[in-house]
Amino acid sequence: MDHSVTAEAAFGRRSAGLTERVERQLSALLSDNDRLSQAMRYSTVNGGKRLRPLLVYASGELLNIEAQQLDSAACAVELIHCYSLVHDDLPAMDDDALRRGRPTTHLQFDEATAILAGDALQALAFEILASDEGLQRQPAAGLAMIKLLTQACGASGMAGGQAMDLQLEGQRPDQQALEHMFRLKTGALIKAAVMMPAALSPSLDQPARQSLARFAEQVGLAFQICDDLLDIEGETAIIGKTAGSDLAHDKATWPGLFGVEAARQRIAELSGDALSCLGRLDGNAEGLLWLTERLLNRDY
Amino acid sequence: MDHSVTAEAAFGRRSAGLTERVERQLSALLSDNDRLSQAMRYSTVNGGKRLRPLLVYASGELLNIEAQQLDSAACAVELIHCYSLVHDDLPAMDDDALRRGRPTTHLQFDEATAILAGDALQALAFEILASDEGLQRQPAAGLAMIKLLTQACGASGMAGGQAMDLQLEGQRPDQQALEHMFRLKTGALIKAAVMMPAALSPSLDQPARQSLARFAEQVGLAFQICDDLLDIEGETAIIGKTAGSDLAHDKATWPGLFGVEAARQRIAELSGDALSCLGRLDGNAEGLLWLTERLLNRDY
Repeated sequence: MDHSVTAEAAFGRRSAGLTERVERQLSALLSDNDRLSQAMRYSTVNGGKRLRPLLVYASGELLNIEAQQLDSAACAVELIHCYSLVHDDLPAMDDDALRRGRPTTHLQFDEATAILAGDALQALAFEILASDEGLQRQPAAGLAMIKLLTQACGASGMAGGQAMDLQLEGQRPDQQALEHMFRLKTGALIKAAVMMPAALSPSLDQPARQSLARFAEQVGLAFQICDDLLDIEGETAIIGKTAGSDLAHDKATWPGLFGVEAARQRIAELSGDALSCLGRLDGNAEGLLWLTERLLNRDY
Repeated sequence: MDHSVTAEAAFGRRSAGLTERVERQLSALLSDNDRLSQAMRYSTVNGGKRLRPLLVYASGELLNIEAQQLDSAACAVELIHCYSLVHDDLPAMDDDALRRGRPTTHLQFDEATAILAGDALQALAFEILASDEGLQRQPAAGLAMIKLLTQACGASGMAGGQAMDLQLEGQRPDQQALEHMFRLKTGALIKAAVMMPAALSPSLDQPARQSLARFAEQVGLAFQICDDLLDIEGETAIIGKTAGSDLAHDKATWPGLFGVEAARQRIAELSGDALSCLGRLDGNAEGLLWLTERLLNRDY
């Protein structure tokens, strides 16, 4: 039996416990005391796959960092992801009606509440990092984690990528421009998820840090190309959001511009490069291997 | 000549230099490389009064902390303020056309860009704190500052207050409920501006910390009541935003619910309490005195 497959399967079994761990914490963080809090909770505690928190824990396993030290980072990354979905779904943005199989936040509540819920989820993400008890004892690592996450969120990260995505509607960018947008829109947060644990590993040397970063970048880009494929090929009932939404918005997508077969090849190429980066790293990579597989071979 | 008046006037003269200091830094932070960055810059580098950064520096003077150590905090507070204005002005929120005498960001650019510019300005505020060179040497203080600012932004702060404000449209809340909303919507960020420098004064004792916090809370509440008065009495050309906007939106305002004279009395009462808190503090309070006067006796 192939050893690595067994090892990956072991993480697969553990991943249910880690997902549950994230769910418990997110649920404890989010009250339903008032309408805004209800909207924040609705937008977060909703059966999300929690792939980014799992990346945080899996990267922590590679670096020998306990899950307990990474709980705030895992939740913060997920809160940022959830806030971005709420804002991306707004009428002025992608105007989507369905998310994770339920009405989007602005339809379930109202537009103003959705804007504010996203705003408050972003603030909460940074708040839990700044308040984390363990990080009070390692404040330099706390600051470094917050810095990584803020950079992933801003004009040179997710918000910048989303702005480019909107500007590219109806355009035909070349592959480099499209992938640059993907790296910001989707890749930056995935990279932050993988790199935040490294803030707790000051002894990690520069080449190892670069390999980990490149692994994350390639996976993040491939993940967005997969997402584009799913939008074409997936069924609404399975992917939990409106299939064909990209086409309806005349979005610039990888398979739309360069073909479905070329998209699959590009995913394989990026995935191969990501795995070779991982191969250059010491430590237990089974979680990152399992997640790479799960991120890039999905039908949901 | 009354000594305190002279002292305050001295800060008044210095305030121009401090405002210029903030302007320079904000301008350096915000590029105009792409449409999103242009919208962020448009929303920030726009002749704002920079009262919150001045509060940061003035509070720092009281606590004997150099301006240089507070530059990131001053800019971060202003970036948060600017982001909140961009989102508050959106069609789904207050739907305002004019801000600081110019078209609001969603009219000058478009709604999606305005949402993303606000999102990215929020991230940038926390990024500059997490990246501040001086705070790398005092990371615990850096984390404490970020925590204060995140709390001021979230569901128990500004975003929560703005949600309440929208829910109170057309309602007649009692004074306590209205003031609770004001303390979140406006007061929380003003309090953060005053309290962030205290993170760099670990020796400040608990009673002094409480006096400073209460000073900030009372000034913050009084400031919002002044704002309501200005909306009734001000002229659009002077206040730089649409006068009468609260009335048009059937907003719950202090003078609208309890009368203009009672509003003036409430401001005087809060202002008196704020100044007595300040009187209990050691240190050079001239800046905070000058700003209290300026915040609560304004016609713009």
